[in-house]
Amino acid sequence: MPTIKFLPHERETQADDGETLIRAALEAGVHVNASCGGEGVCGKCRVIVESGSVEGGISEKLSREDRKKGYRLACRSRVSGDLVVRIPIESEIDASVLNLQSLPRRTARIQQMNLEELKEQGLFNPPVEKKYLELPQPTAQENLADATRLVSYLKLKHGEHRLVVDLPVIRKLPQVFRQEAFKITAILARPVQEGRKTRIINVQAGDTTNRNFAIAVDVGTTTIYGELVNLIDGSAVAQYGEFNGQISYGEDVISRMMFAEKPGGLERLQEVVVESINKVIRKLLRRSRIDVDEINNITLAGNTTMTQLLLKVPSEFLRRSPYVPASTLYPPVKAAELGLELSDHVDALVYPAVSSYVGGDVVAGVMGSGMYRTDELTLFMDIGTNAEIVIGNKDWLACAACSAGPAFEGGGITFGMRAAKGAIEDFSIDPFTNEPMILTIGNVRPKGICGSGLITMVANMFEMGVINHNGKFNRDLDTARIRETDGVVEYVLAFREETQIDRDLVLTEIDIENLIRAKGAIYSGCMTLLSEVGMAIDDLQRIILAGGFGSYVDLEKAMTIGLLPEIDPERVTFVGNGSLMGAKMSALTNRIRKDVVEVTRMMTNFELSETASFMDNYVAALFLPHTEMQHFPKLKARLETRRAALQ
Amino acid sequence: MPTIKFLPHERETQADDGETLIRAALEAGVHVNASCGGEGVCGKCRVIVESGSVEGGISEKLSREDRKKGYRLACRSRVSGDLVVRIPIESEIDASVLNLQSLPRRTARIQQMNLEELKEQGLFNPPVEKKYLELPQPTAQENLADATRLVSYLKLKHGEHRLVVDLPVIRKLPQVFRQEAFKITAILARPVQEGRKTRIINVQAGDTTNRNFAIAVDVGTTTIYGELVNLIDGSAVAQYGEFNGQISYGEDVISRMMFAEKPGGLERLQEVVVESINKVIRKLLRRSRIDVDEINNITLAGNTTMTQLLLKVPSEFLRRSPYVPASTLYPPVKAAELGLELSDHVDALVYPAVSSYVGGDVVAGVMGSGMYRTDELTLFMDIGTNAEIVIGNKDWLACAACSAGPAFEGGGITFGMRAAKGAIEDFSIDPFTNEPMILTIGNVRPKGICGSGLITMVANMFEMGVINHNGKFNRDLDTARIRETDGVVEYVLAFREETQIDRDLVLTEIDIENLIRAKGAIYSGCMTLLSEVGMAIDDLQRIILAGGFGSYVDLEKAMTIGLLPEIDPERVTFVGNGSLMGAKMSALTNRIRKDVVEVTRMMTNFELSETASFMDNYVAALFLPHTEMQHFPKLKARLETRRAALQ
Repeated sequence: MPTIKFLPHERETQADDGETLIRAALEAGVHVNASCGGEGVCGKCRVIVESGSVEGGISEKLSREDRKKGYRLACRSRVSGDLVVRIPIESEIDASVLNLQSLPRRTARIQQMNLEELKEQGLFNPPVEKKYLELPQPTAQENLADATRLVSYLKLKHGEHRLVVDLPVIRKLPQVFRQEAFKITAILARPVQEGRKTRIINVQAGDTTNRNFAIAVDVGTTTIYGELVNLIDGSAVAQYGEFNGQISYGEDVISRMMFAEKPGGLERLQEVVVESINKVIRKLLRRSRIDVDEINNITLAGNTTMTQLLLKVPSEFLRRSPYVPASTLYPPVKAAELGLELSDHVDALVYPAVSSYVGGDVVAGVMGSGMYRTDELTLFMDIGTNAEIVIGNKDWLACAACSAGPAFEGGGITFGMRAAKGAIEDFSIDPFTNEPMILTIGNVRPKGICGSGLITMVANMFEMGVINHNGKFNRDLDTARIRETDGVVEYVLAFREETQIDRDLVLTEIDIENLIRAKGAIYSGCMTLLSEVGMAIDDLQRIILAGGFGSYVDLEKAMTIGLLPEIDPERVTFVGNGSLMGAKMSALTNRIRKDVVEVTRMMTNFELSETASFMDNYVAALFLPHTEMQHFPKLKARLETRRAALQ
Repeated sequence: MPTIKFLPHERETQADDGETLIRAALEAGVHVNASCGGEGVCGKCRVIVESGSVEGGISEKLSREDRKKGYRLACRSRVSGDLVVRIPIESEIDASVLNLQSLPRRTARIQQMNLEELKEQGLFNPPVEKKYLELPQPTAQENLADATRLVSYLKLKHGEHRLVVDLPVIRKLPQVFRQEAFKITAILARPVQEGRKTRIINVQAGDTTNRNFAIAVDVGTTTIYGELVNLIDGSAVAQYGEFNGQISYGEDVISRMMFAEKPGGLERLQEVVVESINKVIRKLLRRSRIDVDEINNITLAGNTTMTQLLLKVPSEFLRRSPYVPASTLYPPVKAAELGLELSDHVDALVYPAVSSYVGGDVVAGVMGSGMYRTDELTLFMDIGTNAEIVIGNKDWLACAACSAGPAFEGGGITFGMRAAKGAIEDFSIDPFTNEPMILTIGNVRPKGICGSGLITMVANMFEMGVINHNGKFNRDLDTARIRETDGVVEYVLAFREETQIDRDLVLTEIDIENLIRAKGAIYSGCMTLLSEVGMAIDDLQRIILAGGFGSYVDLEKAMTIGLLPEIDPERVTFVGNGSLMGAKMSALTNRIRKDVVEVTRMMTNFELSETASFMDNYVAALFLPHTEMQHFPKLKARLETRRAALQ
């Protein structure tokens, strides 16, 4: 990878060939003014290529003279080989002050399911296994019932005990046995609880032991993700995502539950989500060229609402205080009974929930991330409209849902939007000029701010003194970007002509307040859980992030605003779709299925609104980063350095 | 009850007021000539009432003089008070010879299910129980899931552990809980196997613990019997029988199985039998004024073919050598899934079978009769078209199906018929005149011979020397009733004008041969089972008869022809419909359900045709009573007395 050196900062970074210079600067924590998101229209991101050469970067925004001097637009220049790039400094500052600028962007290390580790720990024991048998044929002297023959020889040849034969299998046994002269493959479903019986759920003529598959599904409120896995080696065969068709009946869980209360509503929503899952199943089968009869198992995880709707359980009291789910544990159910287009012999395992707002998706995340098997005190966070947090380790687990509101998905923010093209996802600010550096998804002119962008933005502004501890803009700064409109103080990220939205794109103090409330709810949730079990935030050893949000958020920035507790970023990992990961693990290994029940029981749920200490913790968290600065030593040091440098 | 003394025999008997004199004579073992079945048309049953008086008995068949002398027709005379009755003797014989006549008629003592005994032995533990709970209502501080609340309080208030809540229950919990302010009744289905979980199969608002019912069904090839039982006190509430609608598709199991092999045949037969069972269920509910929702359990027993057809299991290989059933054990299945008109929460327990021809009906009989709990070496027999026999006690059980053929149901006998009006059911013969005494069901002119009548007839003729050891008529007798027609020797039971059938009603040597083959198959079956386990026929301590046949058969006569081993008739009992009795016991007590599985495993099946000793035993049994007379000491003594008296 080419190395790029930025002057006068003397900061080096590496970037892929073809990467834009402006993004390389951002990754290096080097500020370059930029308002148009990287589209090349504002002409502000002028840099001088002092050594090496870039592709592109020439623009009418640059005069002929500038071009001769080596000026390029950083957002249009693509790396090709090592470079030395100088950022033109417009005021007299020294290099030490330059280094007060943003820390390099840093996202969480991705943590994937480690099949080998599972195998080593003896945790890879598929819930459904196949056994091949060449049975002796019945004679006048030995005319055992077909089912008895099957059970006896599974015992004799494979040491299988405590077997029970399902009725549909009994119905097909006579035919299947005689199809290939009593050479057959039996499909065994293992009991989750020890001491219970192994069920023979299917039989096939001949030897089919080399084909054995399962499906794992995350039933999300918005999207349904499925993964088809091979039960023989544990490998992933195909993945597919599809919108949850229930979206037509309401965007969020509350509106879905309201629809479910209408006559026929519950049945309709159940049919719709099943059809969406069936679409995923069909796609997975087509992609992997696997026949539906080869799927022997399906595991599904979703939040409590999604789970109840999928199982056609009325959700009337789930959405009303005191928020009582019908159940948290669900017995296994036939997939076909739910309407899933799978063979009759397939059981659907549905992940258990802890409470109305800590659902099976979170439990699956806890299972998938392995936090329930670790000694380390771990914080698991799944941040979406609601944030669910789980704290603990192999000995205890405490969990809560935090009413974070939709700020992290762009909701409640004046120009908030989902992480889509045109959303500001990266930001830095020049501490002298207070000019912004704005990069958008897709490098187009900005039209809004996504959740991770908002965090980066507020963190940067706070660290550079543009925003104070209370989340208010510093009124003393000499910049036109900070202004008051209709009684609300705001910072102009991009002026009208630099945007796609035909008006100034701003960040207001109300937006910041909303963000602070959201992050305060989550952080105080963590503090409350910890204090309830007699521990403190500094005891945390590890953070696991789940959900789409976790893959983009800049860890140091999230710590700067006090969303995440300040720990070594190396100790923060991202598990992606934790729900799908957990579902997949349960599809692959029976031990996990057994553990799920125990883990769910172990997860002590706290209703934060009913926990005495929560309100105090919450109020204390309504500052940047927090009233108790001692928990943020690194940030404190940086702020002190900055203050000293600027004085 | 009035006492009737018969002269010159000096025999006394008791009879109900209104009973006919001829039947009283028969019960006393006193022969009176009679050919017309008791209709009063042959005029042969002349008797003299010497003391007391009868109602009726005057007929044009009696001359005025005879009437004056006190002559009456025995078949038309009804007992009313004590009587002394003289039978006119037409030849010179002494009283000792008169006493050579038949032993009094004696049927098996009826053995009913003894609920009190079950309760004393701790065997009355219904598989489904109800528990009433007044639950605390959820609050903001304590908002357990409804299912968790239910499970927790069942544990707290009723000491219930290891509970699992069925999905349909989860679906209705929220509504039912809030219907009567969290006062609810939970319906618990106990596990059959210890250590497994108790399932919560239903919940109802309020206290419904005083209503808890189950249904037991005998799925017979011809008739379906149902009984509705109260699970609270074990009492029988209603009984009802209905033809099995499958009869339209074939009379016997073989023709049913043949139909089942046609396209759609199996499905059709399943629907038809389910509809017949539904008729029984509907009738039971109407009769007992019980709502279908109050039925919490159904247990069904039937032969292997009936069971496979009910469960929609193909029977193709069941009817073909080597006669392999698909299964002998069946997992519990939802009643509604079979099409039974019961609530969704009701499980159907189907009795396990031992082999193709020793089915769940026999296992149920073994359970119902309690033979598996006794120390005594017991013979259980269910005689129909096939005879199934089980020998053993609490330590071991051996069983076999005997191809007895339909002789006991009147099949293969020239004038054989089912036990219906006009069937000869009682018989004796005058050892001097060789004239018969014939009584029919309904006291009408005879039209045929039913199974129990045939046995009585042949036994009597054999004991009186009319038939010899080989089943041949004694050609030396001076009677017109024994004659040869078309090369076959026969005995005329009733001449044309005394019958309903416009021809002579006869018993032929071929009929006798068929009866001997049938009884020989059964007796040799018993001998074979006993010899295979190293025991002998004389070791038998008890006989249990099941099936309609068992209630009518004259025990001493059945021993005389060698159908039953000769034991004290006091030690023979009749359990009636053993299949229904067993089904009922399983419906009432969970312990029996558990025992069923072990008993079925314990029942060693012998395919007689494949058992080396069987053919020898069979050939030895093709005599009256048997080649080995030493096993029939009482009969032997009687025959010797007769021989001495007649010489």
